[in-house]
Amino acid sequence: MTTATAPEIAHVKALSQWEGGARTLHQVRRFPAFYTDEPEDLGGTDTGPNPMETVLAAYNGCLAVMIHQIAGEMNFRYSGLELSADGAIDLRGMHGKPGVRRHFQRVTQTIAFDSPESEQRLHQLREAVESRCPAFNLLRDAGVDIRSNWTLR
Amino acid sequence: MTTATAPEIAHVKALSQWEGGARTLHQVRRFPAFYTDEPEDLGGTDTGPNPMETVLAAYNGCLAVMIHQIAGEMNFRYSGLELSADGAIDLRGMHGKPGVRRHFQRVTQTIAFDSPESEQRLHQLREAVESRCPAFNLLRDAGVDIRSNWTLR
Repeated sequence: MTTATAPEIAHVKALSQWEGGARTLHQVRRFPAFYTDEPEDLGGTDTGPNPMETVLAAYNGCLAVMIHQIAGEMNFRYSGLELSADGAIDLRGMHGKPGVRRHFQRVTQTIAFDSPESEQRLHQLREAVESRCPAFNLLRDAGVDIRSNWTLR
Repeated sequence: MTTATAPEIAHVKALSQWEGGARTLHQVRRFPAFYTDEPEDLGGTDTGPNPMETVLAAYNGCLAVMIHQIAGEMNFRYSGLELSADGAIDLRGMHGKPGVRRHFQRVTQTIAFDSPESEQRLHQLREAVESRCPAFNLLRDAGVDIRSNWTLR
C-alpha cells in the first residue's frame, strides 16, 4: 500500500497594465480592477497601496482563510478575528546594494481572536495554520523573520 | 575608507478584519478597503480575488515599479507595459500533505513592452530589475520556479 497521491494543481492568475509612473492596474478574473502605486518619495503618485503593502494584505487574508478552514476541522470557536502585519524593508536592497535582502527583513504580526477557547487550543490552531498556509510559507521559505503574536480576547 | 551604509528601514503595514468564512477586509493607510475571499470550491463566497491571486497582482505591480525606476536610470524608452502571471499551486500542500510545497510550485509570466529598444537593452533592464525587485526576490528566495518571458512589441 502506498500513500502517494496525485498532484492537485490549481492555477491562480493576475493580469496587470502599467499606467505610467509607479501606477499599475490589476485584473483578477471578473472582479473590479484595482491599483497599486507608490508614495511620492518612492517615485509614485500615491493613488493606491504599494505592492509590498498589498503582499501583506494578501498574507493576512491567507492566514484568515486557513484559520477558518482549520478551526472548522478542530471545532475551534471564534466570533471575530483581526490581523495586523508590519513588514520592515531595507530600501538599500531595491537600490541594488549587494548583500542587502530585497524584500522583508522582518514581519511583525498580531492575530487577535474573539474566542472562548484556551491558550492550548489556540497553540494547536496556530501550529496547523503555520504548517499549511500558502502565504505564510512563502514568506518563511524566503527567510523572512516572522514574529507573530496570537492572542485571545 | 568603507562603503558600508546604514540601513534605510521602511515599514509597510496592512490591517485586516475577518468577516466570516474566507472573506477578509483589508485596510492600507487611507486607501479604500478591499476584500480577499475564496471561490466556493475552496470554502468561500467568491466576492473578491483570493490571497494568492492578490500576491501575483502585487508581484506584477512591484515589477512594474522597478521597471519604471530602472528604465529611468538607463534611459530605456517604453510607452506601454503589460504583465501577466500564472501561479501553479499543488492544493495537497494547504491540506497538510507532508513534503508538498504550500505555495507556488511555479510562476509563468509574460512581460510585454511597447518599446523601440533592442533585445540587448531589454536583457540589461531585465537583469537589473530581477536583481533588485522586492516581490520578485521574495518568490525567488522562497524557491519558486519563475519562468519569465520578456518581449518587445
